[in-house]
Amino acid sequence: MFKPRINNLRHKLLEEKLDGVLISSVSNISYLTGFTNFSEKEREAYIFIGSDFAYIITDARYSEAVKKQVPHLTLFERSHNKPTKTLFKKHQKEIKQLGIEEDNLTVLEHKSLSKHFKKIKHFDVSGLRSIKNEKEISKIEKACRIGDLAFDYIVKKIRTGVTEKQMAEELENFIRSKGARFSFPPIIAFGKNSSVPHHQTGPSTLFVRSGREGLIILLDFGVKVDNYCSDMTRTVFFGKLTGKQKEIYEVVLAAQQKAVGYINSVLRLRSGSSTRSLKASEVDKVARDYIVSKGYPTIPHSLGHGIGLEVHEHPSLSPKSREILQEGMVFSIEPGIYIPDFGSPRSTRVEAGGVRIEDLFVLKDNGLRQLTNSPKGIISVNI
Amino acid sequence: MFKPRINNLRHKLLEEKLDGVLISSVSNISYLTGFTNFSEKEREAYIFIGSDFAYIITDARYSEAVKKQVPHLTLFERSHNKPTKTLFKKHQKEIKQLGIEEDNLTVLEHKSLSKHFKKIKHFDVSGLRSIKNEKEISKIEKACRIGDLAFDYIVKKIRTGVTEKQMAEELENFIRSKGARFSFPPIIAFGKNSSVPHHQTGPSTLFVRSGREGLIILLDFGVKVDNYCSDMTRTVFFGKLTGKQKEIYEVVLAAQQKAVGYINSVLRLRSGSSTRSLKASEVDKVARDYIVSKGYPTIPHSLGHGIGLEVHEHPSLSPKSREILQEGMVFSIEPGIYIPDFGSPRSTRVEAGGVRIEDLFVLKDNGLRQLTNSPKGIISVNI
Repeated sequence: MFKPRINNLRHKLLEEKLDGVLISSVSNISYLTGFTNFSEKEREAYIFIGSDFAYIITDARYSEAVKKQVPHLTLFERSHNKPTKTLFKKHQKEIKQLGIEEDNLTVLEHKSLSKHFKKIKHFDVSGLRSIKNEKEISKIEKACRIGDLAFDYIVKKIRTGVTEKQMAEELENFIRSKGARFSFPPIIAFGKNSSVPHHQTGPSTLFVRSGREGLIILLDFGVKVDNYCSDMTRTVFFGKLTGKQKEIYEVVLAAQQKAVGYINSVLRLRSGSSTRSLKASEVDKVARDYIVSKGYPTIPHSLGHGIGLEVHEHPSLSPKSREILQEGMVFSIEPGIYIPDFGSPRSTRVEAGGVRIEDLFVLKDNGLRQLTNSPKGIISVNI
Repeated sequence: MFKPRINNLRHKLLEEKLDGVLISSVSNISYLTGFTNFSEKEREAYIFIGSDFAYIITDARYSEAVKKQVPHLTLFERSHNKPTKTLFKKHQKEIKQLGIEEDNLTVLEHKSLSKHFKKIKHFDVSGLRSIKNEKEISKIEKACRIGDLAFDYIVKKIRTGVTEKQMAEELENFIRSKGARFSFPPIIAFGKNSSVPHHQTGPSTLFVRSGREGLIILLDFGVKVDNYCSDMTRTVFFGKLTGKQKEIYEVVLAAQQKAVGYINSVLRLRSGSSTRSLKASEVDKVARDYIVSKGYPTIPHSLGHGIGLEVHEHPSLSPKSREILQEGMVFSIEPGIYIPDFGSPRSTRVEAGGVRIEDLFVLKDNGLRQLTNSPKGIISVNI
């Protein structure tokens, strides 16, 4: 599994006229080795690949494990007596142009590389990860399944007096009981907090509104299992929905369906004579324009993002994206409407609120397959 | 609390002849703002400070919270229409020389900064954090207390058949029940796994050795609470200790005591007429030389490290450290002996094993105060 990935990388290096690459991001190292124990906070390893060498550079803490688990790369055990520069020195002549991950390598690291390599340029290793194989897809699906179970579990735990933080804890306990973890700090947002797309789960308490009108509960969370991530969002209501809430929910849901429908329609055309490419930016536009056409503000974030070893990876489904969606890509479609004055129409209080619906999909040649499967009909929890 | 920190930063800028600084590391942003919600995995914020401005740069997801929680900085809400470069443009003339965190800022970020600022050099913001105030020390102490409780709890859970991973889970459940988290993935190492200083907690199972000889259980874990970290290591034995195990344990413990004793003796001299400075490298040397003098291999890692918002921060107690230990610094002292041929002297099998003892200390003018307080006498768990 990992050798073909290294070969694939070498092909890309040739295409980019690079003689070698230094890979520093933990997720790309994981992808090329299967070794997932390096810290994401401190630099503990690199991969250094040329046309006729392929090293994993790490220190004595990891060398035992790396020797066993990464036999397809040569271990370079760096130490005080044997710093990484001795390896760079050895190969500096044959590498006329070196690729690096500009968005990951630090200025300090670049400085020391510059002593050995004259020409250094960006090389997008992460792009290699955007198309998933069946094994990867089934790992993401496993994470999605646990996410769905967790959603089912947590909806039943909705009750007066619970705080966002408590719900996050309960969700985490459930996910951990399934042998998994959160893939990112979850967003649990009650009421007006839901108007902040990236609300910090906090001490807000769930309460019964006068008239038992619906209070929004936005749940955005993901699961990580076998190193692969899921991500999903559902918006449910505590109490009876107002007309406005229902309308907004339906617009968001329809926006997601429009995006899905658009992708499927292009794929259908292509199964005929069309060779039309599926631009990520156009998918974004379909959902975005629909929401705006209904008189709501545009989505203040991307419509979606790729997912895999990391929660956010290629492709990006956004207005400025230049990516083409391809078979094997796994990504979210997550339209949302966030406005400061809905939720309690009879109240004079100006109150904020947001609705987002997010699912993961894998692109197959015959259409999108949805990987998250929690219900999307309106859920109104009885008070 | 945060304004004095910004002032302190500005003083340092003057000293370094810098007209401004762009701070990118999450822990330094936390330190200067108290806002701890930014992701450690994706870049979500910067602090940009000059002699007469102080911005926090982030996006709409965070602006509500930042406005409330970081009133001492000016919010610059970046967006597609209002990218960060508009802010840089505004200030590029007054900043002749800009400080950055070279060990944190990426090459890509540096590239775009270079368009606005001609002279850019490293500025060590993290150094500001090495001396802790009483509030910070008491937060670290709180984390240490929970760590001590967790150690007491987990020692009682040692039993035949348990795996390293299970013990890590049980430890985590306990720590979470106290409202805290692990400050890093714990190292739980059974038997020969303990010879790898940074062993990956795994499926190894605790078993009763023939002759009921001691099996090493190395526990290295830390707690994070109120954003501050603790870190401790204890090595206990499942079964009866062999003579060699006992000897090694005692050498490691004595090495720690020698380092502590050395620090205290220098402080005593200073309370008299001495103005001798307390070099971190010399403390390392005392423990290291003692272990080597007893015929064991040198410590394959630093003797200790500062701790606070991050598990590893200034000062470093290592042979190459140039740091001077000062009052208010909090750091670990953690000697260890790791060798491949002890643990089972009667067996012909060559078997690896390691012993490490780690505690946190705060340096006061009258001596070191130990913050972790788990027992350090030999613990042999009855089989």
